[in-house]
Amino acid sequence: MTDDLASWNDGPAKQSIVDFVTATVTPGPDFVDVADRIATFDNDGTLWVERPLPPQFDFVFRRWAADVAKDPSLADQQPYKALAADDHQFFAGLATQDPEVVGALLSAFGRTWLGTTPDEFDAEVRKWLATATQPTLGRPYLELIYQPMRELLAYLRANGFRVFVCSGGGRDFMRVFAEETWGIYKENVIGTAAEYTYSDGRIVRGKHMLGGLDLGPGKPEHIFAQTGRFPLFAAGNGDVDIEMLSAAEFGLLVNHDDDTREFAYTDGAEASLAKAAELGWTVANMRDDWSDVFGS
Amino acid sequence: MTDDLASWNDGPAKQSIVDFVTATVTPGPDFVDVADRIATFDNDGTLWVERPLPPQFDFVFRRWAADVAKDPSLADQQPYKALAADDHQFFAGLATQDPEVVGALLSAFGRTWLGTTPDEFDAEVRKWLATATQPTLGRPYLELIYQPMRELLAYLRANGFRVFVCSGGGRDFMRVFAEETWGIYKENVIGTAAEYTYSDGRIVRGKHMLGGLDLGPGKPEHIFAQTGRFPLFAAGNGDVDIEMLSAAEFGLLVNHDDDTREFAYTDGAEASLAKAAELGWTVANMRDDWSDVFGS
Repeated sequence: MTDDLASWNDGPAKQSIVDFVTATVTPGPDFVDVADRIATFDNDGTLWVERPLPPQFDFVFRRWAADVAKDPSLADQQPYKALAADDHQFFAGLATQDPEVVGALLSAFGRTWLGTTPDEFDAEVRKWLATATQPTLGRPYLELIYQPMRELLAYLRANGFRVFVCSGGGRDFMRVFAEETWGIYKENVIGTAAEYTYSDGRIVRGKHMLGGLDLGPGKPEHIFAQTGRFPLFAAGNGDVDIEMLSAAEFGLLVNHDDDTREFAYTDGAEASLAKAAELGWTVANMRDDWSDVFGS
Repeated sequence: MTDDLASWNDGPAKQSIVDFVTATVTPGPDFVDVADRIATFDNDGTLWVERPLPPQFDFVFRRWAADVAKDPSLADQQPYKALAADDHQFFAGLATQDPEVVGALLSAFGRTWLGTTPDEFDAEVRKWLATATQPTLGRPYLELIYQPMRELLAYLRANGFRVFVCSGGGRDFMRVFAEETWGIYKENVIGTAAEYTYSDGRIVRGKHMLGGLDLGPGKPEHIFAQTGRFPLFAAGNGDVDIEMLSAAEFGLLVNHDDDTREFAYTDGAEASLAKAAELGWTVANMRDDWSDVFGS
């Protein structure tokens, strides 16, 4: 018998996923119409490694370092100052939505890619993907996607789910690799995004965000805007996923407790771990529930 | 041999659609990867009747009339004043994006459904769909969808296209009937939309739009935001579709020239008919190209 979730150890997490999906597709009281089978996945820390920093930070920081080299006057202001000082604490303020940090980051995002076309931005991301490696594990980022989660995406799709990624990270950043990496069409990638303006047959990036940060309450807001539904199944790994998981019928929380194969940390996830216990979300403990982390 | 486009008469319009789709799916120089097979359809006047006014106006006007009955002070301001005076000219200003008209309509939309949940709004639309009839043809609106376009949606899907509706009309309005009527999931419906705010497990409608009007240049902007692509195939019927059709590889323009079975008019479509000639879009003349309009 083929095991669709071969990299999941037998145990309560795998069992509860299989039980939920089986009930969803089996005629009976818990059957769910195909139309309502929406699954949403956080990205950083849920589909791939987010330590020491989410990979998109590496992409952005390299670009900002180059921008400061070209225009040294930027070095006096945030977020360039925090970048030069290697001030991780500053950037952690994004997850807690510190207004000063969010404001500084959004201004810098607006400045950096203002007026670029999607093709130009895509080329920049592709170049980074082809050359950058994660600093502590020493592997290209696309090799640091969790194999058990790849299997879960495929398992849900095989059971009629339409799978979306919903990340605080950049929509356009993720769309560059979504199709080849996750088997998810670009239109199923939801994330924080800039407004674009169309003129003369081209579309160019503006300064402002479209619809706010895709974090915390922003996640169900973005999911509803994109899909017209709340998720039936949602997976996350941190406090910024609480609202998305709360809005879903079935919540899966990845717990990073494996400092041998990946990392062990609960900071940024304390409240979500408490919520999981309170609301009955399924917790996937990386150390015990995953027989393989990155695939062979 | 089954004819997928049975309600299309043989002629240049049908031929050019079939030629394009055949080339798209046939290995060779014009083959297009499945990932890039995105089709976008305008709704009013492209998928269903838009005369004397787009159906959503009927829905909205009934609600606004009820609002004025409850709060007579509204009667002195736009758009309620134009509604009471049956001033079609005023509402036509939406298609030409007259700032005064757009401003008055958006304020009224914001006021009318502020704080409502999607379930409440859906129920209101469903009630209207079940009871309202189009004033000149005397049939429920959902019976006034063009049969040839239903066939075209199915034909494109059968050829690996992912089909989206992209209308200036309300995203949430269309999503109520998209799945049962067009066989298109809610997430494939793009339209003008309000911002929603999530709190306490509910999502409620705000005052402001998310991402501007989905008309003119707003169409490719919304399509890119939702899908990450420009359309391979696009269909429209008016000047507000010019940018969407220009952004597509293949453009189809419905020309309303059939005052026996539907309506004959070119106002609001003069520029798009000229563009069709200039840029080689395919024009579907309702009178000659469609053997059936509404299906039997």
